[in-house]
Amino acid sequence: MSEDKGQLWAGRASGQVADITVRMGESISLDVELYREAIRGSVAPARMLRKMGIVSGEELSAIEEGLRQVRREIEAGILPLRPELEDIHTHVEQRLTELAGEGGRKLHTARSRNDQVAVDTHLFVRRACGEIAGEILLLCEALLERASQQTGTVLPGYTHLQVAQPIRLSHHLMAHFWSFSRDLERFARAGRNAERLPLGSGAMAGVNYENDREFLKEELGFRELYPNSMDAVSTRDHILEFLFAAGVFASHASRLAEELILWNSVEFGFISLPDSLTTGSSIMPQKKNPDLAELSRGKSGRVQSHLVNLLVNLKALPLTYNRDLQEDRFPLLDTRTQSLMIAEALRLMIAGAEFHAQRMRASLERGFATATDLADALVSEKNVAFREAHHIVGNLVRVCAERSFTLGEVPQEVRAEVSPYFGDDTFYSRAVSLERSADKKVSRGGTSLRQLGIQSEEARTVLESWRQHDWNTPDLDF
Amino acid sequence: MSEDKGQLWAGRASGQVADITVRMGESISLDVELYREAIRGSVAPARMLRKMGIVSGEELSAIEEGLRQVRREIEAGILPLRPELEDIHTHVEQRLTELAGEGGRKLHTARSRNDQVAVDTHLFVRRACGEIAGEILLLCEALLERASQQTGTVLPGYTHLQVAQPIRLSHHLMAHFWSFSRDLERFARAGRNAERLPLGSGAMAGVNYENDREFLKEELGFRELYPNSMDAVSTRDHILEFLFAAGVFASHASRLAEELILWNSVEFGFISLPDSLTTGSSIMPQKKNPDLAELSRGKSGRVQSHLVNLLVNLKALPLTYNRDLQEDRFPLLDTRTQSLMIAEALRLMIAGAEFHAQRMRASLERGFATATDLADALVSEKNVAFREAHHIVGNLVRVCAERSFTLGEVPQEVRAEVSPYFGDDTFYSRAVSLERSADKKVSRGGTSLRQLGIQSEEARTVLESWRQHDWNTPDLDF
Amino acid sequence: MSEDKGQLWAGRASGQVADITVRMGESISLDVELYREAIRGSVAPARMLRKMGIVSGEELSAIEEGLRQVRREIEAGILPLRPELEDIHTHVEQRLTELAGEGGRKLHTARSRNDQVAVDTHLFVRRACGEIAGEILLLCEALLERASQQTGTVLPGYTHLQVAQPIRLSHHLMAHFWSFSRDLERFARAGRNAERLPLGSGAMAGVNYENDREFLKEELGFRELYPNSMDAVSTRDHILEFLFAAGVFASHASRLAEELILWNSVEFGFISLPDSLTTGSSIMPQKKNPDLAELSRGKSGRVQSHLVNLLVNLKALPLTYNRDLQEDRFPLLDTRTQSLMIAEALRLMIAGAEFHAQRMRASLERGFATATDLADALVSEKNVAFREAHHIVGNLVRVCAERSFTLGEVPQEVRAEVSPYFGDDTFYSRAVSLERSADKKVSRGGTSLRQLGIQSEEARTVLESWRQHDWNTPDLDF
Amino acid sequence: MSEDKGQLWAGRASGQVADITVRMGESISLDVELYREAIRGSVAPARMLRKMGIVSGEELSAIEEGLRQVRREIEAGILPLRPELEDIHTHVEQRLTELAGEGGRKLHTARSRNDQVAVDTHLFVRRACGEIAGEILLLCEALLERASQQTGTVLPGYTHLQVAQPIRLSHHLMAHFWSFSRDLERFARAGRNAERLPLGSGAMAGVNYENDREFLKEELGFRELYPNSMDAVSTRDHILEFLFAAGVFASHASRLAEELILWNSVEFGFISLPDSLTTGSSIMPQKKNPDLAELSRGKSGRVQSHLVNLLVNLKALPLTYNRDLQEDRFPLLDTRTQSLMIAEALRLMIAGAEFHAQRMRASLERGFATATDLADALVSEKNVAFREAHHIVGNLVRVCAERSFTLGEVPQEVRAEVSPYFGDDTFYSRAVSLERSADKKVSRGGTSLRQLGIQSEEARTVLESWRQHDWNTPDLDF
Repeated sequence: MSEDKGQLWAGRASGQVADITVRMGESISLDVELYREAIRGSVAPARMLRKMGIVSGEELSAIEEGLRQVRREIEAGILPLRPELEDIHTHVEQRLTELAGEGGRKLHTARSRNDQVAVDTHLFVRRACGEIAGEILLLCEALLERASQQTGTVLPGYTHLQVAQPIRLSHHLMAHFWSFSRDLERFARAGRNAERLPLGSGAMAGVNYENDREFLKEELGFRELYPNSMDAVSTRDHILEFLFAAGVFASHASRLAEELILWNSVEFGFISLPDSLTTGSSIMPQKKNPDLAELSRGKSGRVQSHLVNLLVNLKALPLTYNRDLQEDRFPLLDTRTQSLMIAEALRLMIAGAEFHAQRMRASLERGFATATDLADALVSEKNVAFREAHHIVGNLVRVCAERSFTLGEVPQEVRAEVSPYFGDDTFYSRAVSLERSADKKVSRGGTSLRQLGIQSEEARTVLESWRQHDWNTPDLDF
Repeated sequence: MSEDKGQLWAGRASGQVADITVRMGESISLDVELYREAIRGSVAPARMLRKMGIVSGEELSAIEEGLRQVRREIEAGILPLRPELEDIHTHVEQRLTELAGEGGRKLHTARSRNDQVAVDTHLFVRRACGEIAGEILLLCEALLERASQQTGTVLPGYTHLQVAQPIRLSHHLMAHFWSFSRDLERFARAGRNAERLPLGSGAMAGVNYENDREFLKEELGFRELYPNSMDAVSTRDHILEFLFAAGVFASHASRLAEELILWNSVEFGFISLPDSLTTGSSIMPQKKNPDLAELSRGKSGRVQSHLVNLLVNLKALPLTYNRDLQEDRFPLLDTRTQSLMIAEALRLMIAGAEFHAQRMRASLERGFATATDLADALVSEKNVAFREAHHIVGNLVRVCAERSFTLGEVPQEVRAEVSPYFGDDTFYSRAVSLERSADKKVSRGGTSLRQLGIQSEEARTVLESWRQHDWNTPDLDF
Repeated sequence: MSEDKGQLWAGRASGQVADITVRMGESISLDVELYREAIRGSVAPARMLRKMGIVSGEELSAIEEGLRQVRREIEAGILPLRPELEDIHTHVEQRLTELAGEGGRKLHTARSRNDQVAVDTHLFVRRACGEIAGEILLLCEALLERASQQTGTVLPGYTHLQVAQPIRLSHHLMAHFWSFSRDLERFARAGRNAERLPLGSGAMAGVNYENDREFLKEELGFRELYPNSMDAVSTRDHILEFLFAAGVFASHASRLAEELILWNSVEFGFISLPDSLTTGSSIMPQKKNPDLAELSRGKSGRVQSHLVNLLVNLKALPLTYNRDLQEDRFPLLDTRTQSLMIAEALRLMIAGAEFHAQRMRASLERGFATATDLADALVSEKNVAFREAHHIVGNLVRVCAERSFTLGEVPQEVRAEVSPYFGDDTFYSRAVSLERSADKKVSRGGTSLRQLGIQSEEARTVLESWRQHDWNTPDLDF
Repeated sequence: MSEDKGQLWAGRASGQVADITVRMGESISLDVELYREAIRGSVAPARMLRKMGIVSGEELSAIEEGLRQVRREIEAGILPLRPELEDIHTHVEQRLTELAGEGGRKLHTARSRNDQVAVDTHLFVRRACGEIAGEILLLCEALLERASQQTGTVLPGYTHLQVAQPIRLSHHLMAHFWSFSRDLERFARAGRNAERLPLGSGAMAGVNYENDREFLKEELGFRELYPNSMDAVSTRDHILEFLFAAGVFASHASRLAEELILWNSVEFGFISLPDSLTTGSSIMPQKKNPDLAELSRGKSGRVQSHLVNLLVNLKALPLTYNRDLQEDRFPLLDTRTQSLMIAEALRLMIAGAEFHAQRMRASLERGFATATDLADALVSEKNVAFREAHHIVGNLVRVCAERSFTLGEVPQEVRAEVSPYFGDDTFYSRAVSLERSADKKVSRGGTSLRQLGIQSEEARTVLESWRQHDWNTPDLDF
């Protein structure tokens, strides 16, 4: 039981606490970042005690004013952080007792550190989910906006990083849009999953009086109560959910970042990133290191490792509170920080990238991206048998490759030599047109202009619904 | 592009495929387990082609009959699995072409392996979520049933693995109940997340005709379409969600398993596990190795590692299909197998465990679990100041510890010496009663009998709603 | 204790073992792959018992012949694998008892399954390290061989995937050579680390007679004994070391694989991979999917996840043998299989790749890779101040970029306009020469021809020493 | 290339660097911890430049004095850390330029940030390995010391957390000793592996003058040079090795910590931990929360996650320097900090634990730990057949269990009823003696007193050799 830890065991025996106990046991260096949650999580029980008549109106005022004062002191950086006070709660509690006297003490005795810690991280997850989702929403908006400008741009669609088929840049950007929109779902779920109130569960068995957890729930804007006090203080599911949502987001981010890096290379040359987001060389003005994309990619390891951290931590941990759980703070806090940066960096790169349509076309042509279309055209328009058509086009490609022509450039006489059908200029040029190839993909979700229009509408609807989404971000003011 | 891979590239050049290309590239040894998904995923487009008039009624019959035949041959183990045919689709396709002729060929040309593979794993995730959730539901039922029998049993609630407070065994079992009930949520979400249809996306850009993805969706019981063909063939979010749900379940399982192992030890002695679930020694009949609990605990590493596997795989993977993605099969399949076993093993242990209430009481008493209650009673009933009360009880505990008494056993004269209040037998015995201590935890979610009744009702409601849950498990028959 | 498990507890009570106990507890489906280790690990104690006079010469012959027979039956696939016999040892033991009578029984009673399992995996790690290192050695040879052919080829060295400086292809290939040569070190260490003999430690406390572990050590070619029986049966350090060596190798492999994929793209175009190692399209003969490179990259997740698996498994496991440890088999075996394939695939790709020097030069030129060299030349040969030199070259690059010239192509008059120094053809062309740039990197380990010669000599020496390395691969024959 | 990054690109164009570029790109908040390595890593090239005559004696003095001044300012906390200066090198470099003028500038131009960063982390790994090994050595000493005091104490050896056989406490402690002694090996290897000098490799291709890397090697106490400049700046093998060594150590630590937690429970009661290392309750003086053990266990997840972080980061990263690599700092630094704390905490707990031999005996007896010995005695001394002996002892155990006797307590008449052999008091009491059972384990590495003596000698030798080990910790003073 840790509830009576503050004053009581500190005075134990000779009060000799080994230095390592302080150094290893402190979490204040991390959880000072949770001060708003810790303080708001103290106001709620104070108000409950008032409602129950345990604390007087005056005492409540003193508590609330005291907590505001503590908050100001933390924000001003004047509350000294003392490792021997272990965590944010003892800091708040001790300072509050100085400021608010007996009322502060009453507040303290009504709670346990175990459910206080738990409620802090629940509040934090709810807040962080909303914040990160807000950034991802901006990223999605940037993707959709750029996509809507780039329906006319054709670039290679890749499989195996080989040029496969002509697609529209909008389509490519929208693929990432959808993937990030699923991250919004995940953060929404993670946030909602954290809307379970552990407060009022005591050290783990419940508390010795009929507290009003429904009141606490309303006060802190939770959706439901943990129905079991032991589960309430033991579970870290809410953090796992958050870390997973962030881990998948980081995975998506690393994929987009990889493409930005590829596209920004001399060899691809599909984009230029803005100066303000790159580093470079005065001597080679065209050279721009895509540092933010690289960091976004690299940080995926960092974010995902936090999930592994907590999974290992929780493995085989018996009920209920074990001090191991204190280690949840580090992955939780850093995941928020990193995720926010990644989302912002990607958004700014997407918004600021200059696209080079000519280089994209050049890749398509070098990759003979419409060879299949040409064969299809032989089949459908010239009644050539499938296998024969493939054979003919294979020959043409071979000739082009040997003589460094693209399908678009190969002179009429050369292609006519491969097959008389190719002498027909109209037929031929339509068959190898990049745009026409893309527009043949008329299936739902395909890259044709018409389908892109439909997709774009869907995306707008989805975005709008996310804009309306009630994140139920906790109101930490009071 | 892999769509034309089957017949076409195999014939390339001299047809020389290196042995390593076959050995490393094959997935049939794994994905044969997906044969029902692969076959059902072929019936749907065949019916679509019929609806669109591309395939005749007769052809459709031949295709369906052919696919049924392939299924029978796989189930009978008579379809030879040939690594050079790579995966389940080529096996099905090739055999179908033999059986169904031209219709089979038509079916083939209308699809890509990229979206076929994707639809298989979506179907599989949906099925696996339902199956695993079914097992977890049984586990939850077992927990609730045992809990409802054990409201009278008192055992220590632990923090830091130290005896902290008396709780009721029901309460402890229910803590696990709630934790597993959240796993049901996660599997429900993972299943629902997989109800997005990738089929009809072609190799990645869409297909060259107006296919009817809404029809495919209805046919295969999906909820929605992927709105973007590139995303449809690239994403593995649905598998990540599944692996995560299983990873958290495995985490919970490892925690319960750890407790079963502890409780089954000579030192705790809280339970005996049934012979049929343990291994042991003829010479020491009371000795029972909790192998299933140990394996459940150990397999958490296995299940969680699958999530890490896929996260690493996906890191920095550019769009769209890359052959790396083939490696999704292994974590996916093994996660289902392991999760089912873990859930079953835990359920049987919970259902079959014999509880030893006396040993539980002995721990409580040895742990002076009601010392705090005694101090509280001094405060509330004898008007002793808080700090003074703690001091007095501290002395009593010290005396008891030195002389090997529990609070229940210490003779009246000994305790009266520590404090005259303790001479009052009625006061004293009520104050140190384990059951009374538990019943003082009257807060919502606490371990008092009354709150347990409420909790139990909630649990029944939750269970019932899960029993009614529509898992929308794909119907793979046709 | 598991030593008396075989016959004894099986007969316990009603003998009812739950189906899940069999399904979840069996490891024979995996560890049949360890049959040679298990059998050789049985010959050694049999010979020790002979030496100690416990087993007669005839009995030993019967045991050895029996074990050979069991081995033949396993290899012929005629020994039925029965899950209820759990693992390879019980299979071997039971069959041996049928074949060798009393001697077989004596062998059995002298040992415990706990140290048998441990010795198997030690032998296996030793074998696997040698095998994988053998493959990596071949890969290193291929890298060195190709490097020695490609000193004349210049390609871009990249930082941030941006063209940075001209380097020689040899230098690039050798960077991978050194990285893989460190993997040889790691596998050598992992192998050596597994040269500690656990056999003779009994179930965990030692055995009841003065066995001759030194004899066992010699018999099985180990280097030392575990000095503590409890440690001997509990530790899985040897497997962790092996999994780590493989995990780092997989990391290196994924980096080389990534480059092969990039270089094989249309945009880079630096290599063509042999038909036999790629998949492709009949219609686009130049299009070759680098499947083996992609699989090598993707399998890094698989291999690395095995390390995570075992780390999670071992977390917080008390001494000594716990059934959780049985789960070591799966990561161990699969890691060997995957690593061998990855090494072979990379070797064949390296050996078979065709390099396209022109495309490499084109990238260098498009990347203005010698702009810095030009500025340096202004400083050193024309006495221009550093900052001024940078400014001038920056202007030239800008002009070139705008008018689509490379530094090599820009006409004399255009460059002379930027700076009169550039009118000097001899000065200019020397200053922007790719080969000269590379050859200026005269520092040890640099990319100049002379340094490459030294590096190459070092590499040959290293390779030769690895060829001579005594892997002490266990001789499993008898 | 990042070498000319400092002054040059900062001045590029309008100099507008986005806020996110600064926030996300800075590493100074972490790598300030590497200031001694960064500064010492600057002294070495300065001295080399002096030797080569590029820098004058006066300039060298100015550089060295300047670097000392920078070091003092950092240590005094008066060098302002500015995110826009990105990392420790730019901070040092910029301040040095102010302090040392032209010499400082010369120093700068001779190097690249890519090999500077690399040399820092190599130096840091070497230092950290020595420091952590120093702590583990103290832990090993504590284990050996306590072991040498506890040869007379008998406790249960466990398999499956079931009482299996009587062992001596020394033996158990020594099992951990050997496991940690292997960690010393791993840290020695990790340190040695980092004794490869990357400095002098430039940005990645080498530098434009014949630097003297052998001199740098000697100056910084390295063992060898990286033979390839690209490998030198790209590899993070040295960090992986360090993280792995720490990950396995953390695994071992979690296992010992788990046992301390178990043993400290009321149910086991095998140890009491010192007040100074636990937290507790004033009211329950015997209750001591083993917080340090819990944190040591929980931090295993944290340490191991750092390895996962870097493995994910490195996955598929092309050569050479990519900005992703900057993320190596965080796992590197935190791993050192956590490992040091874990080792210290474990040592203090081992050194300070009070052992309760009576409780250990009680477990052994409750677990009928000598039942097998009794059966063995029937076989060897009374010529009872093996199976019959087991049957008889099984009956005795059953009777004892039913009537709550231990084998030591069961009255003569009760046991004689089970079998007349048991009426023989001398035979019986010898046969069930815990100490005699332990002393029958005479095999090498067994738990008998004699073998413990041998083991103890081996341990002393090993420890002594580690004390003599030359860690080659870099001398960072100058």
